[in-house]
Amino acid sequence: MTSTTPGRLATPGAPTIGVFDSGFGGLTVLRALLRRMPQARYAFLGDTARLPYGSKSRRTIARYAAESAQFLVNEQGAEFLVIACNTASALALDAIQDAVPVPVLGVIEPGAEAARAASKNGDVLVIATDATVRSHAYAAACQKRGLRALEMACPLLVPLVEEGWLSPVPAAGTTQAASASAQADDPQKEAVTEQVIRIYLQQLREQAAAAGLTPDTLVLGCTHYPLLRALIEKAVSPGVRVIDSAESAAETAAKQLAARLGNIAPEGETKLRCFATDSIEKFERLGSRFLGRPVGTVELVDLGG
Amino acid sequence: MTSTTPGRLATPGAPTIGVFDSGFGGLTVLRALLRRMPQARYAFLGDTARLPYGSKSRRTIARYAAESAQFLVNEQGAEFLVIACNTASALALDAIQDAVPVPVLGVIEPGAEAARAASKNGDVLVIATDATVRSHAYAAACQKRGLRALEMACPLLVPLVEEGWLSPVPAAGTTQAASASAQADDPQKEAVTEQVIRIYLQQLREQAAAAGLTPDTLVLGCTHYPLLRALIEKAVSPGVRVIDSAESAAETAAKQLAARLGNIAPEGETKLRCFATDSIEKFERLGSRFLGRPVGTVELVDLGG
Repeated sequence: MTSTTPGRLATPGAPTIGVFDSGFGGLTVLRALLRRMPQARYAFLGDTARLPYGSKSRRTIARYAAESAQFLVNEQGAEFLVIACNTASALALDAIQDAVPVPVLGVIEPGAEAARAASKNGDVLVIATDATVRSHAYAAACQKRGLRALEMACPLLVPLVEEGWLSPVPAAGTTQAASASAQADDPQKEAVTEQVIRIYLQQLREQAAAAGLTPDTLVLGCTHYPLLRALIEKAVSPGVRVIDSAESAAETAAKQLAARLGNIAPEGETKLRCFATDSIEKFERLGSRFLGRPVGTVELVDLGG
Repeated sequence: MTSTTPGRLATPGAPTIGVFDSGFGGLTVLRALLRRMPQARYAFLGDTARLPYGSKSRRTIARYAAESAQFLVNEQGAEFLVIACNTASALALDAIQDAVPVPVLGVIEPGAEAARAASKNGDVLVIATDATVRSHAYAAACQKRGLRALEMACPLLVPLVEEGWLSPVPAAGTTQAASASAQADDPQKEAVTEQVIRIYLQQLREQAAAAGLTPDTLVLGCTHYPLLRALIEKAVSPGVRVIDSAESAAETAAKQLAARLGNIAPEGETKLRCFATDSIEKFERLGSRFLGRPVGTVELVDLGG
């Protein structure tokens, strides 16, 4: 493994938190982490050269994810890893944990835990990518907590978010974020996204009814979906609570870090470095929309084939 | 390079035509080839483990495409290669030609040639994936022929096709193809696809008007788009001819092969083998919809990293 940026981020004081995704959707998790722990240092890696993980085999995903985790720990000095990718969390969490000597947190367990806290009757819906649904990782994590979960893949939602067919999420008011979301202003386009969400949720309701479930909680099991949260909340049945696994993972990470390290001393400005294995341009163009603030310069790293 | 299927297809008599795509969209080109040359042998390779090529760098795409071409020629005995992938045709045709000692035909030149034959006033529109548009390969091929081309990326169309949000294309009436398209029967879903196409084409018309073009021809520059042909023809301005680059490439391939080999003697049933580097399941499930007949068993090959 070679890197064009061999420098380490870690210095005494603030810990470095490594955040990993196959693409840049995981920036929604980083956004939630930044809100809770602005005083930490962050190294984010998007394995954009090899995405999407969703269509790959478990063995391939495990190898890619382990290499990415090793880059963040060995080359960027991360002392805690958040796997901000549902597919990698579902299929490769053990492989990642075996590959690095630091604590590793995925998004699925925190999402299921938040669903347990939110649901009154134990019937839960999960929407996610095809690969996450096929892994049944959410269903298993929910079942462990006594919940009954129905999962459905919504493959059109990621491309709709990446195309920007939605209103800008209220962000930190930066010009870069505003310009990244500029194309979203067409109400015709957002209407398409709303209709796609309505069709998926209608299908999900029918499946739930057929399975004898009366769900009161919907888990957003993909790191792209927080950008659709407002539209999804408009489309769910009355009384259904929407759980954002990105927020849940950030909250769990903050608690685990506080337990391990105590409160982190404030250190002035947040330190953030973003790395990608390819497609820097798309990352820089779209990343701000996910992060809610400029991602800055994205550095290219080569993790091999 | 190792292969789990070292057997060769070539035997005296019918030539083997290798057809290559990063995924299975290129099956629309194979479908058009089968209609014109049912007596040939075919080896189709979808490099599904490493798709989508569109988000990768030119160097990476060239390496993947060359390895794929070598598999078809060296291990499957292909005597003629059709690159049924717009991204690989746009970015790696020279690299592929350098990697194998057989004739190589891409989809872009035939598409541009068909546009030249169809257009009366020389103003042409091209819709394609983001990567194909960014390469400007169609614009260059059109310009060489004295055409003025305006290209636009339509990134939502591939996922809409792969989700099956469209009516089944009239196929060879096989039960497998019918079942692969079963979920398309929901008119709400097809209405979404129609609306997405309308929005893209409206945008394209506005851009053409702003550029002072009065296009009379629209090129489908992605091998997924033939499945949307009927919807696209409904949405274009009156008098605009729709050119399918998959059909154009098949026609050119048939002519070149006839010129090289003479007429191919009929040999009974068509011989077809399909290979993929990963995701056999999705290939088998969706492939029939693209091919218009059952793809049969898809064989897994390992081309490395």
